[in-house]
Amino acid sequence: MYIQKNVLDKILLNALEEDLGNGDITTLSVIPADKKAHGRYIAKESGILCGIGVAKRVYELLDDAVIFTAHNKDGDFVEKGTVIAEVEGPAVTLLSGERIGLNLMQRLSGIATRTAEAVKAVEGTNAKVTDTRKTTPGIRVLEKYAVRVGGGSNHRFNLADGILIKDNHIAAAGSITKAVEMARKNAHHMIKIEVEIETFEQLYEALEARADIIMLDNMNEEDMTKAVEIINGRAISEASGNMGERDLAKVAKTGVDLISIGALTHSVHSMDISLKFNLDN
Amino acid sequence: MYIQKNVLDKILLNALEEDLGNGDITTLSVIPADKKAHGRYIAKESGILCGIGVAKRVYELLDDAVIFTAHNKDGDFVEKGTVIAEVEGPAVTLLSGERIGLNLMQRLSGIATRTAEAVKAVEGTNAKVTDTRKTTPGIRVLEKYAVRVGGGSNHRFNLADGILIKDNHIAAAGSITKAVEMARKNAHHMIKIEVEIETFEQLYEALEARADIIMLDNMNEEDMTKAVEIINGRAISEASGNMGERDLAKVAKTGVDLISIGALTHSVHSMDISLKFNLDN
Amino acid sequence: MYIQKNVLDKILLNALEEDLGNGDITTLSVIPADKKAHGRYIAKESGILCGIGVAKRVYELLDDAVIFTAHNKDGDFVEKGTVIAEVEGPAVTLLSGERIGLNLMQRLSGIATRTAEAVKAVEGTNAKVTDTRKTTPGIRVLEKYAVRVGGGSNHRFNLADGILIKDNHIAAAGSITKAVEMARKNAHHMIKIEVEIETFEQLYEALEARADIIMLDNMNEEDMTKAVEIINGRAISEASGNMGERDLAKVAKTGVDLISIGALTHSVHSMDISLKFNLDN
Amino acid sequence: MYIQKNVLDKILLNALEEDLGNGDITTLSVIPADKKAHGRYIAKESGILCGIGVAKRVYELLDDAVIFTAHNKDGDFVEKGTVIAEVEGPAVTLLSGERIGLNLMQRLSGIATRTAEAVKAVEGTNAKVTDTRKTTPGIRVLEKYAVRVGGGSNHRFNLADGILIKDNHIAAAGSITKAVEMARKNAHHMIKIEVEIETFEQLYEALEARADIIMLDNMNEEDMTKAVEIINGRAISEASGNMGERDLAKVAKTGVDLISIGALTHSVHSMDISLKFNLDN
Amino acid sequence: MYIQKNVLDKILLNALEEDLGNGDITTLSVIPADKKAHGRYIAKESGILCGIGVAKRVYELLDDAVIFTAHNKDGDFVEKGTVIAEVEGPAVTLLSGERIGLNLMQRLSGIATRTAEAVKAVEGTNAKVTDTRKTTPGIRVLEKYAVRVGGGSNHRFNLADGILIKDNHIAAAGSITKAVEMARKNAHHMIKIEVEIETFEQLYEALEARADIIMLDNMNEEDMTKAVEIINGRAISEASGNMGERDLAKVAKTGVDLISIGALTHSVHSMDISLKFNLDN
Amino acid sequence: MYIQKNVLDKILLNALEEDLGNGDITTLSVIPADKKAHGRYIAKESGILCGIGVAKRVYELLDDAVIFTAHNKDGDFVEKGTVIAEVEGPAVTLLSGERIGLNLMQRLSGIATRTAEAVKAVEGTNAKVTDTRKTTPGIRVLEKYAVRVGGGSNHRFNLADGILIKDNHIAAAGSITKAVEMARKNAHHMIKIEVEIETFEQLYEALEARADIIMLDNMNEEDMTKAVEIINGRAISEASGNMGERDLAKVAKTGVDLISIGALTHSVHSMDISLKFNLDN
Repeated sequence: MYIQKNVLDKILLNALEEDLGNGDITTLSVIPADKKAHGRYIAKESGILCGIGVAKRVYELLDDAVIFTAHNKDGDFVEKGTVIAEVEGPAVTLLSGERIGLNLMQRLSGIATRTAEAVKAVEGTNAKVTDTRKTTPGIRVLEKYAVRVGGGSNHRFNLADGILIKDNHIAAAGSITKAVEMARKNAHHMIKIEVEIETFEQLYEALEARADIIMLDNMNEEDMTKAVEIINGRAISEASGNMGERDLAKVAKTGVDLISIGALTHSVHSMDISLKFNLDN
Repeated sequence: MYIQKNVLDKILLNALEEDLGNGDITTLSVIPADKKAHGRYIAKESGILCGIGVAKRVYELLDDAVIFTAHNKDGDFVEKGTVIAEVEGPAVTLLSGERIGLNLMQRLSGIATRTAEAVKAVEGTNAKVTDTRKTTPGIRVLEKYAVRVGGGSNHRFNLADGILIKDNHIAAAGSITKAVEMARKNAHHMIKIEVEIETFEQLYEALEARADIIMLDNMNEEDMTKAVEIINGRAISEASGNMGERDLAKVAKTGVDLISIGALTHSVHSMDISLKFNLDN
Repeated sequence: MYIQKNVLDKILLNALEEDLGNGDITTLSVIPADKKAHGRYIAKESGILCGIGVAKRVYELLDDAVIFTAHNKDGDFVEKGTVIAEVEGPAVTLLSGERIGLNLMQRLSGIATRTAEAVKAVEGTNAKVTDTRKTTPGIRVLEKYAVRVGGGSNHRFNLADGILIKDNHIAAAGSITKAVEMARKNAHHMIKIEVEIETFEQLYEALEARADIIMLDNMNEEDMTKAVEIINGRAISEASGNMGERDLAKVAKTGVDLISIGALTHSVHSMDISLKFNLDN
Repeated sequence: MYIQKNVLDKILLNALEEDLGNGDITTLSVIPADKKAHGRYIAKESGILCGIGVAKRVYELLDDAVIFTAHNKDGDFVEKGTVIAEVEGPAVTLLSGERIGLNLMQRLSGIATRTAEAVKAVEGTNAKVTDTRKTTPGIRVLEKYAVRVGGGSNHRFNLADGILIKDNHIAAAGSITKAVEMARKNAHHMIKIEVEIETFEQLYEALEARADIIMLDNMNEEDMTKAVEIINGRAISEASGNMGERDLAKVAKTGVDLISIGALTHSVHSMDISLKFNLDN
Repeated sequence: MYIQKNVLDKILLNALEEDLGNGDITTLSVIPADKKAHGRYIAKESGILCGIGVAKRVYELLDDAVIFTAHNKDGDFVEKGTVIAEVEGPAVTLLSGERIGLNLMQRLSGIATRTAEAVKAVEGTNAKVTDTRKTTPGIRVLEKYAVRVGGGSNHRFNLADGILIKDNHIAAAGSITKAVEMARKNAHHMIKIEVEIETFEQLYEALEARADIIMLDNMNEEDMTKAVEIINGRAISEASGNMGERDLAKVAKTGVDLISIGALTHSVHSMDISLKFNLDN
Repeated sequence: MYIQKNVLDKILLNALEEDLGNGDITTLSVIPADKKAHGRYIAKESGILCGIGVAKRVYELLDDAVIFTAHNKDGDFVEKGTVIAEVEGPAVTLLSGERIGLNLMQRLSGIATRTAEAVKAVEGTNAKVTDTRKTTPGIRVLEKYAVRVGGGSNHRFNLADGILIKDNHIAAAGSITKAVEMARKNAHHMIKIEVEIETFEQLYEALEARADIIMLDNMNEEDMTKAVEIINGRAISEASGNMGERDLAKVAKTGVDLISIGALTHSVHSMDISLKFNLDN
């Protein structure tokens, strides 16, 4: 649970360039340069906090004169009304960078909270909750961090660090068997091989080929239970396909090892956090 | 309606780095380098197409050997089942870049379609539909392009090219009057001055200060109608605040000039477009 | 009056790469690494200071060990002979970065001073002094900042944040009327529409089309006075065309709202500021 | 006489970002996307052309659909009225990129022309005309190219590729002798050592230390003649200091090898070149 | 076997900036701009070719006018004396880019050849040859490509796409068991878990913890044979530690699955390839 | 002896991106975020230390919370067993950045040590030891710094800051005489002209053309002695060609001014330095 400074800075500098351009003209025009302000980040709803360091870093990149004091840390459950953090410094800076930091913290906290709910729904079962590549372009590393903060686990970060054999790959290779063989031969040995299957016939073939992970795509719970029994520990099983709209407790009870939920990151309810300023006289 | 090549390339190179890393290891492991494929982009639902040049450019950035043939252009209404475009080239390249191009085209077409619906809803009135800054970080310029393709109009692109005076600015300046005066004095003359108001008292003050645009924040239709009458052409009026969930026809009938809808870009239903491959023998 | 840190750093890192390459070989060869020096920035002529933070930032980007102490701030009128700032640290660093910081401060102070003179020339009139896009490529944002420091106002920052309809646009659109209509329809509503006119006929057409700003291009004072009367407050009027060589008081007395002067940034007399070093023993 | 593609592209992409931002909003609003235009670059005054490839490259970076046809090449003397080049393609692109390409070509041609005049002034003497580091930040490599195109020679490109020992270096080292010794010991052997001198005493010391080049700073012609006699071929002699305002023929007749003129690049009269468009129907 | 264009370009543009700076001053000074040349890449020793597309791309990035014709492709075994490829175009460009392209091709071919020798040495056994992270900083992706071209397999690409638990990790976690448990809990499920062991006690603990891969560090062949028997297919076994100096056939006969050889990339004998130019008259 | 901060940061940020990607997944998974550690850099063999600031900067770029204390400085001869530096901070950071910093310090110290040996071998003669362009792509500036730290001298940094006329240049120009003339005419005057020769005939021609430096390529000591006598101080002489395998004392005794040794940087024995961690409880 940690975002590397050079990785974070690259994302935030890009966001600052997009949203502030050469400067927030409203703030610069209307607010005197020597005006100081003091702001409080307040949770307007309860949830799992995530992104406190991101909001802080936005201000550091804008101005050394900002002092950011966190009262909570990522992963904390915060009650509605909690003062999460405080910030003080030049009013111009505080207002210019307000949106980028706040939006990211709201979004990341929303993801962490949603993930925590999913994790809670499967409590008592074997199943782990995991994300997908369906993330916001450009900030995937932050969103996957939020999933971890919420208690979830990550799926592969990009196409380079995990093998997932789908229909087109199978068609190109000739069969599941051939595709898995080629992957085992050509890819590096530290990456597991996952195969997406839709039928029991495919499942048997994937097991025979010794796939490390089998993605059960769009199966109902009955079939999923059966599939898990067939797999019988010979591979990791992953339930996939519209999991954001399924009853996760039921899915988890089929015995699958993983439930991957695209909705964790692509249909986010941002957690309501406000930043209220007092302008110093 | 046009995206600058250098602007587009910067976005896409960033996206390729995020999603492909050093290479799509599944595709590279499983599919022979000399395998060719042919793909067809098919509309799985009807809508306004947007992003055809984006999908094409993704492949150009990956490989000169890809041939992309568009049968439709941005802004076309395409019926479900339409073959929008075709692509052929090395199977490895086609599969590696599939997701980035397709996801962006789906998202942009979803925005264009949603915008076109909003534009249709206000047909016959004076109101124009406009977007906000609530866009996906890093691809704002593409999403605002999609709004234009859908018949909408853009709000400011970033904090540097439009003045919008909100509560904190007013507090810092002392009053609406003072804030507008400072903006007029300090900002450049080619940018209009917009003031966000919530009460009729504020409205009168903003008019008195000769704001160019007045944002009517979270007003019901009755008050909005009254506000438009008070403004009486002395400023552009903009309806704002949860417009994604309002009856746009009713809002438009109040006589406002603009309706800004954050939901155009922040709650997007991506248009379903598939890319089906045939692998050449 | 403020330059964003990320914006400034991007410019200065580029400048350091251009001018220092892998290192100032003279300084590195001739001066021992542990030699300390102390430098004083001295105004060799009187003027409006601008760029003190730029010179400071150059050193921060090169070496944390440099201590920079400003005795004046941007916008101060400094008399010839004033010690503006002092700097101390490793002699190697102080000499390596001397030119970049000093040149920028000289140039920006020259712009601020020239702007202040123009502002003074129009004192007592309604006219504001403004810059153009005729800036040094790559450092526009700094030069426009200097104009503000000198009491002037900025024109648009780039082609994306202001509409200025010129002859080619009019020809392409068919007429001033059509061009303004298209701009109003297609561009976002927060940006004003400026039309460049050369004849009274064009002036009437632009007014009829309700242009927000009318650029009176290369008019003599008599015609300009007449044009301002015709406009009569219905648009902002901008005097343009070789204003750097005109008698600004006379131009201002025509009643125009703005006088845009390309010469503020393209024919700069850099203010003479020296940096004198004492080398510690 | 050649600018490397990767070096040129880096400069131009930066300039496009600065001047066009996300797009030329006037042109995009007012001119239909399918409008074609045809432009002719015309010399409005006579001079040495420079930058034709720069103007061409600007358009290539914006749009593959632009066709640029050069009728002249860098280094050509073009008479007033000459059609230097033609360009055709989408009107939107042609207008958007007009200024950047044209401004650079005007500036570079101005430098080349000014250089050619200086070269002509010293014709028949031994003296070569050279530039300095007083170039526009960010485009030094282009400006130094223009000097070569005009028949001049370049001084060092940056602080890393030439040694020039000045007063502060001498002070830090203790004496000219010591500074030259340290430079010879520490810097690489492929770079010559230049020493700036103001007195004959310094001249003798520099010669004694076997400096490769001696910069005669701010000397009158009489002293300069004497200095050249003293040097007597033992070092290259360079005349420096306000050479832009000196009678170059007289300076050259003193027998100096080089005359370095900061004004070649810092006080440029841009050559007047226009780009006239015809808009196709 | 494929390098992504955007990945390759990033590396090569960086290399061009480092080695050519603003231009190859010797070539630019000495060779006329219109001089054409024709070059032939000749194998001066036999080996596995790798990097033909890299050499080609260097020239494409410098100049569109270069024509590069490959007679062989990556992975070909070329005999001493083979003309591998030909290149023609402006002599200035061909000479400027000669070194970067040639050096990379020599180095990559050297790696591919060395890898092929190692692969041959273990022929008939179960063992695969793999690389390590001991690559040249900045060009790892190219060097790992060369290993694949030579018939080898890749180990993890960076610290983000593979888990390798070493002594410090074990110390921090408390034990191998705890470290593996934490890795399984916290890392994503598509990445295998490798544990480095030095003793049989550690081996038993790692197996008990169900590590996916066990790295046998610096074991002699006797112990290695015993370790493979103990593992008995429950994990992948990897022989590691100075494998570049070991008898690979003997190591392979112990039954290990992988032999990782740092020397493949850190002690490279570059394959001798020359580029001979004929200068056209 | 100094590496510019902006130059160093560019190299290190690139290296961090290559080696850590989005984060060291082993360390992040296995080690608690609040675990502190303390590490000691220990010389495992004696040698000249180089790169202490590089290792320090790696950690600064990753995390402000790391405290790095150097006990030695670059250029120090450290005995085997010396504790060179200590570092403390979050264990996750210390382990993530361990390799990049350590590898660079090992490599640079190896280069400095090897250079110091070569310098010692030629002690008592006139000869200076110098490097070549045969450096690791992307980190040339660091490796050339290490050569200086070891007491050597640098050859040109890139193709832009030194003229070296080789066989292809001579062929293109027509003769050594013509090539030197063109170089003197076209290149800037601060750069010396070096000519590579292989025969005495070429030597006489190069001297006649007044080359500043003559590279004696692959000569035996007898011929080299003769060549130095012929040159007789009229040019700098440089011995070149497999100097890494020659008896440097003998080469130096021929009287050459410079001995350039590619092996200083291309066949480096990294100095063995370890970083041992204690994990705090």
